[in-house]
This record gives sequence, structure tokens and C-alpha cells, in this order.
Amino acid sequence: MAMTSNRLYLLRALYDWICDNHLTPYLLVDASGDDLSIPYDFVEDNKIVLNLSPSAVRDLDLSNDYINFKARFSGKSMNVYFPVGAVLAIYANENGHGMFFQEEQQKVAVDKESVSNSEPVKKEEKKEEKKKKGSHLKIVK
Amino acid sequence: MAMTSNRLYLLRALYDWICDNHLTPYLLVDASGDDLSIPYDFVEDNKIVLNLSPSAVRDLDLSNDYINFKARFSGKSMNVYFPVGAVLAIYANENGHGMFFQEEQQKVAVDKESVSNSEPVKKEEKKEEKKKKGSHLKIVK
Repeated sequence: MAMTSNRLYLLRALYDWICDNHLTPYLLVDASGDDLSIPYDFVEDNKIVLNLSPSAVRDLDLSNDYINFKARFSGKSMNVYFPVGAVLAIYANENGHGMFFQEEQQKVAVDKESVSNSEPVKKEEKKEEKKKKGSHLKIVK
Repeated sequence: MAMTSNRLYLLRALYDWICDNHLTPYLLVDASGDDLSIPYDFVEDNKIVLNLSPSAVRDLDLSNDYINFKARFSGKSMNVYFPVGAVLAIYANENGHGMFFQEEQQKVAVDKESVSNSEPVKKEEKKEEKKKKGSHLKIVK
């Protein structure tokens, strides 16, 4: 029995969990699609990491199939959006706790992908963190 | 860095996901604790399965550390409650899609347990489904 994707539901849940713990929610997003509005200067290996903390973004909308918010990059305000299916992970920047989603097939039920095959973001993966100057969004990877 | 449990966040997310898909949310609950109010007649192997669909329960409260609702069992109304940490799984009865939580340690951050080690409820596990008469809540297992 086909179900809608649960990725948006899980994203919202973990976003609230991370914020309620006063930590910083980061999203790892697949930047290879053609229906994204993102700061491509910060894309590396077809991926971008975005800080979605309430202090870093404005007008964050997690209610639709496209995640949408405004943020400043290199001093310029930008309207950022991307499909929920492009989100590869959400985690707390401070400790890496969160959830990894498998790459796509978001048109079908993804409970298997997003639950049993999900892995917490490993702290080690964030050791290579590289921050670029002039951005309100930290870029990791 | 210790975080609160994310089990309640994930529970609410998957509850909404299942209901939005017009399927029936079932909870598998560990009945071995001493801080539960449940219909013990329907407990088997220290576990109980409860139908939490909006049509089966009243005054469902998923906002606190204790899940609380009213339902009828064998014709009698009952105020049911149990700690979130006692919830072992949430899934759609129709297809078994959902999330399994590992047994306890809910006092510490449980992202590892509830995410990477979670398994979708297997359809096969529900083959032994046994319904008892006279209850608005179907009992499986």
C-alpha cells in the first residue's frame, strides 16, 4: 500500500527536537537537482550544508514539499528553496546527532529508507568542516 | 552532549504521517512498567497493542512525557496512559510501515537507538494477529 514520503514529517520532528535542545540544526542537501535555489558558491561535491537555526534564517517554511527560507550569504540576502527529497540529513552541528536519509526515491513510501537504513551523522564526518567567511550559513563538509 | 529523548518527536511525526495517509496508527507498548494505566486483560507477553486512530480514542494527548487518551474496552470507558519510553513501535496497521524503537534507556539521548537501530515493523510479525471481542481497540500479537 503506497504511502506518501515521511521525510518531511521526520525532518520537522528532528528540527524541533534539535532546537528544543538549544542546538543548531544543520541540513545536508543534495545540490545536483535543477529545481533548487541555493548559494552555489558553497556547494562542494554536489552537496551543500545549511544552518537552519532560527537565528540564521528568516521565514523558514517546513510545511510544503519545498523547504523555503531567506538567509544572507556573503552579505547578500537570498531566497533559498529546495525539494524535501533533496535533503540527505538533518543533525545538530554540536554533536552530530540526527538522521541520515538515503538518496531519493521520494515518490514512494520511504519508511524503509528513512528509518531502518538511516544512520546518525557521524561526528567524524564533520571533522573536515570548512567554514567560509562572510556567510551567515556555515558550510561543512 | 546529552540531549533529551527524540522518541516523542518521532512518534508524533509518524502518527501524523499515518493519519494523513488515512491509515490506522497502532502502538506497541511495553506493559511491564508500574506507571501505566492500560487494560491488562489485553496484555500478552508483557506487551499491548493499542489502536490510536482518531475514531478509536478520545482526548488523545501526545504533548507530554505520558501518552494519554480515553477509549472503551469491553464496553467500559477507560483513561489510558503510559510513559513515552514504554512505546516500542508505531506503525500503520494496514501495511506495517512505521518505526520500531529499541527498549529503553530513554533518559539519555536515544537518537542512535531510535534512528539507526530502528527497524520497520515487519508485516510477518502481524500475521499472528489475534483480535479480542468487545473492545474498540484491536489487540494484535
